[in-house]
Amino acid sequence: MDIMSKGLPKRSENYSEWYNEIVKRADLAENSAVRGCMVIKPYGFAIWEKMQRALDDMFKATGHQNAYFPLFVPKSFLEKEEEHAEGFAKECAVVTHYRLKVNPEGGLMVDPNAKLEEELVIRPTSETVIWNTYRNWIQSWRDLPLLINQWCNIVRWEMRTRLFLRTTEFLWQEGHTAHATEQEAVEETERMLGVYASFAEDWIGLPVLRGLKSPNERFAGAVETYCIEGLMQDGKALQCGTSHFLGQNFSKSFEVKFVNKENQQEYPWATSWGVSTRLMGALIMAHSDDNGLVLPPNLAPVQVVIIPIYKTPEDLTTISEKVAPVVDALKAAGVSVKYDDSDNQRSGWKFAEYELRGVPIRLGVGMRDLEAGTVEVARRDTLSKESRPLEGIADHVKELLSEIQVNIFQKALKFREDNTFSVDTWEQFKEQIEKGGFLLAHWDGTPETEEKIKEETKATIRCIPLDATAEDGKCIYSGAPSNKRVVFARAY
Amino acid sequence: MDIMSKGLPKRSENYSEWYNEIVKRADLAENSAVRGCMVIKPYGFAIWEKMQRALDDMFKATGHQNAYFPLFVPKSFLEKEEEHAEGFAKECAVVTHYRLKVNPEGGLMVDPNAKLEEELVIRPTSETVIWNTYRNWIQSWRDLPLLINQWCNIVRWEMRTRLFLRTTEFLWQEGHTAHATEQEAVEETERMLGVYASFAEDWIGLPVLRGLKSPNERFAGAVETYCIEGLMQDGKALQCGTSHFLGQNFSKSFEVKFVNKENQQEYPWATSWGVSTRLMGALIMAHSDDNGLVLPPNLAPVQVVIIPIYKTPEDLTTISEKVAPVVDALKAAGVSVKYDDSDNQRSGWKFAEYELRGVPIRLGVGMRDLEAGTVEVARRDTLSKESRPLEGIADHVKELLSEIQVNIFQKALKFREDNTFSVDTWEQFKEQIEKGGFLLAHWDGTPETEEKIKEETKATIRCIPLDATAEDGKCIYSGAPSNKRVVFARAY
Repeated sequence: MDIMSKGLPKRSENYSEWYNEIVKRADLAENSAVRGCMVIKPYGFAIWEKMQRALDDMFKATGHQNAYFPLFVPKSFLEKEEEHAEGFAKECAVVTHYRLKVNPEGGLMVDPNAKLEEELVIRPTSETVIWNTYRNWIQSWRDLPLLINQWCNIVRWEMRTRLFLRTTEFLWQEGHTAHATEQEAVEETERMLGVYASFAEDWIGLPVLRGLKSPNERFAGAVETYCIEGLMQDGKALQCGTSHFLGQNFSKSFEVKFVNKENQQEYPWATSWGVSTRLMGALIMAHSDDNGLVLPPNLAPVQVVIIPIYKTPEDLTTISEKVAPVVDALKAAGVSVKYDDSDNQRSGWKFAEYELRGVPIRLGVGMRDLEAGTVEVARRDTLSKESRPLEGIADHVKELLSEIQVNIFQKALKFREDNTFSVDTWEQFKEQIEKGGFLLAHWDGTPETEEKIKEETKATIRCIPLDATAEDGKCIYSGAPSNKRVVFARAY
Repeated sequence: MDIMSKGLPKRSENYSEWYNEIVKRADLAENSAVRGCMVIKPYGFAIWEKMQRALDDMFKATGHQNAYFPLFVPKSFLEKEEEHAEGFAKECAVVTHYRLKVNPEGGLMVDPNAKLEEELVIRPTSETVIWNTYRNWIQSWRDLPLLINQWCNIVRWEMRTRLFLRTTEFLWQEGHTAHATEQEAVEETERMLGVYASFAEDWIGLPVLRGLKSPNERFAGAVETYCIEGLMQDGKALQCGTSHFLGQNFSKSFEVKFVNKENQQEYPWATSWGVSTRLMGALIMAHSDDNGLVLPPNLAPVQVVIIPIYKTPEDLTTISEKVAPVVDALKAAGVSVKYDDSDNQRSGWKFAEYELRGVPIRLGVGMRDLEAGTVEVARRDTLSKESRPLEGIADHVKELLSEIQVNIFQKALKFREDNTFSVDTWEQFKEQIEKGGFLLAHWDGTPETEEKIKEETKATIRCIPLDATAEDGKCIYSGAPSNKRVVFARAY
């Protein structure tokens, strides 16, 4: 059973290495020759496509339309919103020339005569380009709300990269909306946070906290940043998505105005929100085990694999004939099924391979099974196996897929609950943060304290939970009064 | 009927201006603040999404998988295949720095300390990055064929741009495959040309010629370039897609080898193929008229619009009640339908708006129609109207959508046939090329002659048709012997 996962580092021993090896061996992604950029391999991309499809449907169901804006951001655009500019300047890939020419000494060289008058930055996010466009799209309250999303690539020059979690180029979607009132914009910000939370929980099977970022962790240019935070199996937090209430910062910077119902000029209110290929990292880290990837059925490119176990070509023919109607029935029920009758590997090798790749259900069919009218059903999430009647197996598989989806979520939820701690003293805090988990603690609300806690423990405030209950207490660090607990953790 | 298209330039008078205005007024795209880059607006993007979905299904049905490769191409990669390097060097946007910093004089500036050791080019196409990756993916004949596609953005610095037809940044897909034998690679090249031709004809409703490019027009680095060519309504040709047989050029440049069944090292054979947002230009130019856009039903985001015609709110309620089951029936049949009961515009304005936007079928429902148990059915392609019984209207609409799809293709086919000319003398050639159309003429097969014909008439060889029949003749320009006719035209 362990042929493929042979040598796979143990999750409990070297979590980081275990993650890298799963990404590599399950054929999800690899580092490219370009520093910090990844190649998303077909199997990894198939999972991302399923994420995209599900999210896109949710965006459209909430009234959004897709569009496409340019890759290039003129430097002068980035300068317009000061905090935004400062926040992103250090990570910008800059295009300075638009032509190469033959180098007399061989190869190609940048053509010095083709220097751009104004440098172009590869979009690190598109608020500026989009709000510059909105100036022409928004004139009247009738043009609002404007609810737009785009799927695209993003570049942020990162010094330390990790496949999916932090890469120089990544894929994402970014919603950019404009509203007539502050309240509508805040509602939109919260609505999209809700969409992300539903996606994380119902599709990835990852329970997430919903909250507000502290000012230190806010998006550059936002009035308020909402986030969803998940807990990974090593006790570290992963920010899985953010939704920003931008106030009128960008409409003012780009001079976008509309005539309201009272015939007065006003600046519209903005939101932006995004999730990225980082969600692939969340998916991998939340559920996988020492045997490899564990995929929630809702996002598995192959939900069920059927493997024949045979010695002779005649046996294979017999098995294939019996399996064909099962395949048809599953396909008809909308289940993604693969019958792997390839002859280049033994069935034991195949078992291990599909386990490593996280296929939720494996059906093994041998001659003895057929004689008994049964198949062997193996679950990836629990690694359990049982013999089931061949008759009605398609219905059983469908139910089992739902059951696995729920189980994966429940398991992750239990893990989070077991690793969420209320902490009341600085000693407790320092001790627990070494062990990992979400730490609920009082904080005095100042950036200074947050910064000091980070320096001393590497822990940051992951969020101020939206559902935090009022509770009088004292800041674990400064002892100053606090009226609710916030969530601390070390994070990716 | 002409409120929206008022002032729309006539196709016959100023084709170029007519095209620009349709793109603008039908809300398809607009120029961005960044030179040569476009913003694809929601309505335009919805059409592109339908194209993507249809093509993606066809790619998957022919065994391809999607993946994603980096945006950046190191300069040294581009240098490796000589012809390829020369072909693309002049159009490359070049990233030279990876950071901005605060300018003491205000704003931001490029940080001179953040200069890249090796310049990165924004991908003008991805053969080099992908073949560099394939070196690790291909070891044995068992790894072949490798059938990969990616959807992404591309940058080619263009001096003269036109929305959709030629833009600095555009969206496309690029297939990159590797095969064990030359024959398999050629078959793949032709298979994908077939996919493109089917898509153009069955979805866009545009008949296309399938052929080979002459050496002058070949993709830089290809052994053979296959193409599909459509004829636009102004008599100019538009290259709609290309499929390249790359031989072993890239496998050799990037030292990709595999062990064949005879246990010998060999270079794999390659293909690449792509279509882009240029297809949006083809779609617009092939069918639209002086009233605006005409969309083939298969690609229309809204296939049927239903507009109530009423004076009082009570009338609207009555109409809405009668229309609701029609909307339900159409949706159930998979038809994209919009019931526009918005009260901000009169029905006449709406009629013109949906006409401008190319919605294939419009149903008008007034009180008098209801009394008579009828609806008014208007076809966008023929601009004809008829009264039809409300009873069974959903079935009628479904049939009509198929009929319109066929009619649009047939109309374009007739146009092409009427504008395809066999030309036997240089005088005839020069005269006809001014009038436009595809010119079938003999050519001596030399690049020199092709170049001279281009200089004198602006006509290029669009393709050497795959189905050209053997026919002895003399080159229209040089008089040298030729054994088949090739297709000349002026082109976009």
